[in-house]
Amino acid sequence: MAGIDPELAQACDRHEARNLEELKRLIAIPSISADPEHRDDVRRCCEHVVARMNEIGLSARVLETGGNPLAYGEWMHAPGKATLLVYGHYDVQPVDPIELWHSPPFEGTVRDGKIFGRGSVDDKGQVLMHLAAIAAHLAVRGRLPINLKVVVEGEEEIGSPNFDAAVERYRDAFAADVAAISDTAMYAQDVPSLTTSLRGLVHWEIRVDGPAQDTHSGYFGGIVRNPIEALATIVAALKDDDGRVPVPGFYDGVPELDESQAAELAALAFDETVEAEALGVPQLWGERGRHPLERMWFRPTLECNGIWGGYSGPGSKTIVPSFATAKISARLVGEQDPVRVRDLVARYVERLAPAGVRVSITDDGAVRPIVVPRDHPAVAAAARAMEAGFGRAPVFIGTGGSIGPVATFDRLLGLPQVLIGVGLPDDAIHAPNEKFSLRQFFDGIKTIAYFYDELAGLRPGGGSG
Amino acid sequence: MAGIDPELAQACDRHEARNLEELKRLIAIPSISADPEHRDDVRRCCEHVVARMNEIGLSARVLETGGNPLAYGEWMHAPGKATLLVYGHYDVQPVDPIELWHSPPFEGTVRDGKIFGRGSVDDKGQVLMHLAAIAAHLAVRGRLPINLKVVVEGEEEIGSPNFDAAVERYRDAFAADVAAISDTAMYAQDVPSLTTSLRGLVHWEIRVDGPAQDTHSGYFGGIVRNPIEALATIVAALKDDDGRVPVPGFYDGVPELDESQAAELAALAFDETVEAEALGVPQLWGERGRHPLERMWFRPTLECNGIWGGYSGPGSKTIVPSFATAKISARLVGEQDPVRVRDLVARYVERLAPAGVRVSITDDGAVRPIVVPRDHPAVAAAARAMEAGFGRAPVFIGTGGSIGPVATFDRLLGLPQVLIGVGLPDDAIHAPNEKFSLRQFFDGIKTIAYFYDELAGLRPGGGSG
Repeated sequence: MAGIDPELAQACDRHEARNLEELKRLIAIPSISADPEHRDDVRRCCEHVVARMNEIGLSARVLETGGNPLAYGEWMHAPGKATLLVYGHYDVQPVDPIELWHSPPFEGTVRDGKIFGRGSVDDKGQVLMHLAAIAAHLAVRGRLPINLKVVVEGEEEIGSPNFDAAVERYRDAFAADVAAISDTAMYAQDVPSLTTSLRGLVHWEIRVDGPAQDTHSGYFGGIVRNPIEALATIVAALKDDDGRVPVPGFYDGVPELDESQAAELAALAFDETVEAEALGVPQLWGERGRHPLERMWFRPTLECNGIWGGYSGPGSKTIVPSFATAKISARLVGEQDPVRVRDLVARYVERLAPAGVRVSITDDGAVRPIVVPRDHPAVAAAARAMEAGFGRAPVFIGTGGSIGPVATFDRLLGLPQVLIGVGLPDDAIHAPNEKFSLRQFFDGIKTIAYFYDELAGLRPGGGSG
Repeated sequence: MAGIDPELAQACDRHEARNLEELKRLIAIPSISADPEHRDDVRRCCEHVVARMNEIGLSARVLETGGNPLAYGEWMHAPGKATLLVYGHYDVQPVDPIELWHSPPFEGTVRDGKIFGRGSVDDKGQVLMHLAAIAAHLAVRGRLPINLKVVVEGEEEIGSPNFDAAVERYRDAFAADVAAISDTAMYAQDVPSLTTSLRGLVHWEIRVDGPAQDTHSGYFGGIVRNPIEALATIVAALKDDDGRVPVPGFYDGVPELDESQAAELAALAFDETVEAEALGVPQLWGERGRHPLERMWFRPTLECNGIWGGYSGPGSKTIVPSFATAKISARLVGEQDPVRVRDLVARYVERLAPAGVRVSITDDGAVRPIVVPRDHPAVAAAARAMEAGFGRAPVFIGTGGSIGPVATFDRLLGLPQVLIGVGLPDDAIHAPNEKFSLRQFFDGIKTIAYFYDELAGLRPGGGSG
């Protein structure tokens, strides 16, 4: 164990203001990958990250892909040492509903010890933790304790459609002994955590077409099937009264918790009333008879993410609308096959299509669920670094989220991976007023700096030295 | 019977170009009553109508109400003659989805013998039929054959919320022997029609609130009830598989067709395949076992007019949204009481509210269904005028639409009413590319001019002279 280097810690402290400035600069670039109107911003963000990497002493460049480019930087001057591949993403979620933001989403604003802004924690802030830790190492010692590669992606928030191909294309750039991803959250403030499972992800868009144009509901109400009502029938059938997804075959490959998992969940503090209050709902709801943490981390879900059709302006407009549309997505676990689930849901929706309207469904994305092994020495190194950075040994948790590249690293590169993230559950990622606690950000930087030191003993090819 | 005055007909023909210009000018004012942003346009439209009334020889003024003002004009120089009250409206429906319009909605554009534009037929064009007919009479003879009052309302498309109060306030202005409303359509091209029943109207907005803000569907999918899915469950429950509205008590007061009504419906040409094709749907749909015309005119419906919630932008955004909203409205018939239906539906929706979310419903509007007696001499006068204007005796039909003031005239003033409209079923009212056939417009002007002559024999207080 390398222990804490006080000079390194001081360097991190000394640069707090500068690191916060860098985060504000990165937040200021509206790199929304889902919106084609922001394509130029996305590229600009990539180039900004590359420039920053070069500035701190990495050898960095833009790697083109079939979609948004990757920012890539490396420091490979530690012969005989293992190589760490750091992954993060510079793209962000859309900002709607914009009117609910208390400060502009693309203006990093500090209030109450937190920085608010889209991407503050997901994932720009956590990417910058690594760049700041690298900068601290190079400033103090002029070198890193390991070989290091940093890949920052621009399409994580849209399901990483071009990432697998980029990994194949740039095999050399991705060659490493272990990967670290900082795109997850801790279980709670003061409960440092290492994430060991991620859910998979698939999404669909359902469109129901009725009359060729919006029609007067007085004249035609009663003789045409209402597309909104037809769509509502489909969306209402995504769950049964017990909170289960009634799509035939949906739960194939979903494992039941084993005793040790159940014991781990039971050991974590979870107060349903407190959680419901924090979320602003009258009560939690979900699959009957299962613990909320099991539902969040180890059970699949199917959710409607958006719906629209007909008139939504002020007052009333008495029409039978021409069409209605919904976006839905599934989170997957265990051995659920995303491609198979994609088809199962599509066929289920098509079978629900009522007479009198036309139903079409398109699908996209296929992120596999993944479980990270806990017994790798890099995981032990991360645990020691977290304890040094946050003052407590971490717990092992799951997450309901999905990170496509984690599955890619597992499947294409066979890389052991460490999911070392320091967000908090109330960070409002993907929502208005996303924030990153400055304490988490600054302690995270130190934790990452220590983590690199802890990895110094890792032998190339895996195992501790 | 007065017959056709050839000089009057020629005056109408001679002014075709001018009448078309007037219609374009009126369409150019975006008097959308549902949208507060158009409040100034609404008033400007009222003032424009008043100015035009004065121009053609009426004594006109703006009548203020609790909402949008009325345009009022009168010509009361036929002592001993009956007084006709003409009603129409100058406000229009919203224009969304704007991208589906082939020409700007507020620019009257003539193509293929039709004028396209919001309000072209509903109801600006039909209001102008009366003003043009009055202008022809005054141009040819310097006088009208009857006393005449014209009231043009500015809130018909939002349910006439201030009309009843205005009728009370301006009792003198509304005093008349008979009312004529030109805000309906003929059964088909070449099938001149007089409408004898109108459905009533009530509308609601349902809102389902879930988490206090949009939440990450990975983190929270599985533990919170999805507000869109909860709303979908409610909207899906507005109809059963037989197309009936399962709200308890909803059908109270709905009469079955009597034999003569059934025979009248059966006598009207109706081809379901042709209608489905015209509407662009695979097949018609509605209450099982009932004729489509019965469903349109004599059966109540409950329709969802709009729905929205969550993310509707490009790509995907994996959230459990904070809320979802739907607009619904009911068309009523027979003795259905709008106020009672309002409560029945609200209570039904509240009972459907699932655990884990908050459901609220607001209601608005209460237009009674109405049946106009056919045996009044003014109806016979209208029938003769239609035969003179369109070359065939009219049929009697119902309409699925609702016109609040018709119910008001019946209830508050006890006025006999004639629903003499010349729109066509494919006019796309309330929809993109609303149009008015120029042939209907010009023949309509003559029909109205003849109608005034036909009313000359009507005795004040009713009955024919």
